[in-house]
Amino acid sequence: MSTATGGLDATSVAAVLKRVAERRPRVHCLTNTVAQNVTANMLLALGAVPSMASHPDEVAAVAAGAGAILINLGTINPEGERAIPKLVDVVRERDIPLVLDPVFVELSPLRMRLAQEILRLPGVTVRGNAAEMAALDDTMGQAQSVLRVTTGKIDQIEGSGQAYRIGHGHALMTKVTGLGCASSALVAACRTVEPDPALAAATALTAYGIAGEIAAARAAGPGSFAMHLIDALAGLDETALVARMG
Amino acid sequence: MSTATGGLDATSVAAVLKRVAERRPRVHCLTNTVAQNVTANMLLALGAVPSMASHPDEVAAVAAGAGAILINLGTINPEGERAIPKLVDVVRERDIPLVLDPVFVELSPLRMRLAQEILRLPGVTVRGNAAEMAALDDTMGQAQSVLRVTTGKIDQIEGSGQAYRIGHGHALMTKVTGLGCASSALVAACRTVEPDPALAAATALTAYGIAGEIAAARAAGPGSFAMHLIDALAGLDETALVARMG
Amino acid sequence: MSTATGGLDATSVAAVLKRVAERRPRVHCLTNTVAQNVTANMLLALGAVPSMASHPDEVAAVAAGAGAILINLGTINPEGERAIPKLVDVVRERDIPLVLDPVFVELSPLRMRLAQEILRLPGVTVRGNAAEMAALDDTMGQAQSVLRVTTGKIDQIEGSGQAYRIGHGHALMTKVTGLGCASSALVAACRTVEPDPALAAATALTAYGIAGEIAAARAAGPGSFAMHLIDALAGLDETALVARMG
Repeated sequence: MSTATGGLDATSVAAVLKRVAERRPRVHCLTNTVAQNVTANMLLALGAVPSMASHPDEVAAVAAGAGAILINLGTINPEGERAIPKLVDVVRERDIPLVLDPVFVELSPLRMRLAQEILRLPGVTVRGNAAEMAALDDTMGQAQSVLRVTTGKIDQIEGSGQAYRIGHGHALMTKVTGLGCASSALVAACRTVEPDPALAAATALTAYGIAGEIAAARAAGPGSFAMHLIDALAGLDETALVARMG
Repeated sequence: MSTATGGLDATSVAAVLKRVAERRPRVHCLTNTVAQNVTANMLLALGAVPSMASHPDEVAAVAAGAGAILINLGTINPEGERAIPKLVDVVRERDIPLVLDPVFVELSPLRMRLAQEILRLPGVTVRGNAAEMAALDDTMGQAQSVLRVTTGKIDQIEGSGQAYRIGHGHALMTKVTGLGCASSALVAACRTVEPDPALAAATALTAYGIAGEIAAARAAGPGSFAMHLIDALAGLDETALVARMG
Repeated sequence: MSTATGGLDATSVAAVLKRVAERRPRVHCLTNTVAQNVTANMLLALGAVPSMASHPDEVAAVAAGAGAILINLGTINPEGERAIPKLVDVVRERDIPLVLDPVFVELSPLRMRLAQEILRLPGVTVRGNAAEMAALDDTMGQAQSVLRVTTGKIDQIEGSGQAYRIGHGHALMTKVTGLGCASSALVAACRTVEPDPALAAATALTAYGIAGEIAAARAAGPGSFAMHLIDALAGLDETALVARMG
């Protein structure tokens, strides 16, 4: 995989990752049950701490102390649907950074309605694949200060400030369930320690993509790749970043 | 593990698997939260695409475009209970193949009632262990064109047409949670590209069992076995099938 | 990791583990969706059998035949909230050993209320980290015959009888999600075959900690550690216990 980053250097990426590892921020994730486990393990590998309460009667209390909040619409259930307005209130009251992952929003009118509700908040980072981002294009166009993070072979990060294009990663990342969902949580983790949302997203996706390249070189298939990816992300240091980012 | 298949040859199995890999069918899974992750990863290893929406307000919309539907009764919750009639309607309206996995149906009157409701549909494939299949024997006897897939040391596939007995697999497959549940999803995936339900089931269980044998030879215990199983399933080709099926 | 056990020897630990492997007890787990999969796999590695029904309409029927019950409050949802009184009734009527894992109880008034409800039962084993146990200190002080199992660098087991301090384990155990939750299930599994709750807990945590030490020596990071931990627990025998416990 060749690198194609706009204005991103290994030192900046390493600096953000170091702050995550030192501060150990908590990321509250309302996320789908398929991806919860791998999402939590990726956050831990980066040095962050996951919390995943979803009960409408406790989600605000648990999320209130988090450094960032992720809402992922995969396997949304009636309870999660009721939790979303509680999280939106917490975000608004406490100015906590929010990342939205609109899984399969193009297939479900329910998810579209929930995404539109969330995007009434200013400053949301949206991380999705091309089909999801296309389905949400109009809604994001009306949203205030949204950061668009479209992942794929080349990840594109576009908002009001600096734009980035990230060419790291490996095709095996599409063969393991939940890895896209986990990337959204990593974007949220970096955002807890980096006020520039575009740099936070670029850091997370660069680190994740490079960990994917390292893991792919060790893997015999998608099963071992998933394991090596966690090891590689947990072991990522500036030397490895420099070697891959040039 | 010795092989004992009735009329099944490696070329037929390879042909079905090739169609799955080429067409990348989506399998919609209403399945238990313990097995969701491993089920999704096994589907991806075979080349299929999982979707797992369960909210009663969106499950029909998401499942409508799938090539097959799996209903697994493990950890059924009130929301899943309400989703089942929606999926039954989709199956009926669109004639989508349905696989039922009646987890622990012998322990729960609720699951028995749900299984009976589902088995009013014609043409259902039921995949369970001996205890589950015994508990459902009367209900299946009254159902129309049901295919019975009883897995164990020898897997037995019985319906109106060709019957198969599959002797592949390894004892470690009983030491990892969710592997039985995942096998039902693989049966559904093969059914999307193979109109003969018995051949579809035989293909899925043969491929899975052989992948299990390959993985067992590499494993140091159930943890590494789970990983090697995904790798082996993703890497399975006709050469490996011929070598094991003779 | 050095060993610091009070009155625990390898032969006693091996004897309890052997009874679990021979009797294959079922442990019913009402547990969080993040940890369900790893919890089930750890139970299977020890030789126990997991069941995880949570629907209020079936949880009593499924749990009634279990050898022990675990209630873990992580990601509690409205359905789980309604399942808890049903499980409390089953415990009371059938005198089934109960283990409570009060995940993040210090962050959620809802979880505190549920923990207090559960601790009206006599003889509960509570397994938590230092923050969780501190938050529950008063409630446990009023409970009858509670066993306190506080895990951390040194695990402490305190009740009316013998107290134990366990110094096994590895720092990587804090870098994989759900491993604390899984330890509570292992405590429940050992309790099914050992009437002394303190010895049951000490056995489970010693076995788990030693498996963690063995796994850490083989691991390249938290991803491979999780896999090796399952393998090591499944392969643990008296020779390995003697070697590590001295």
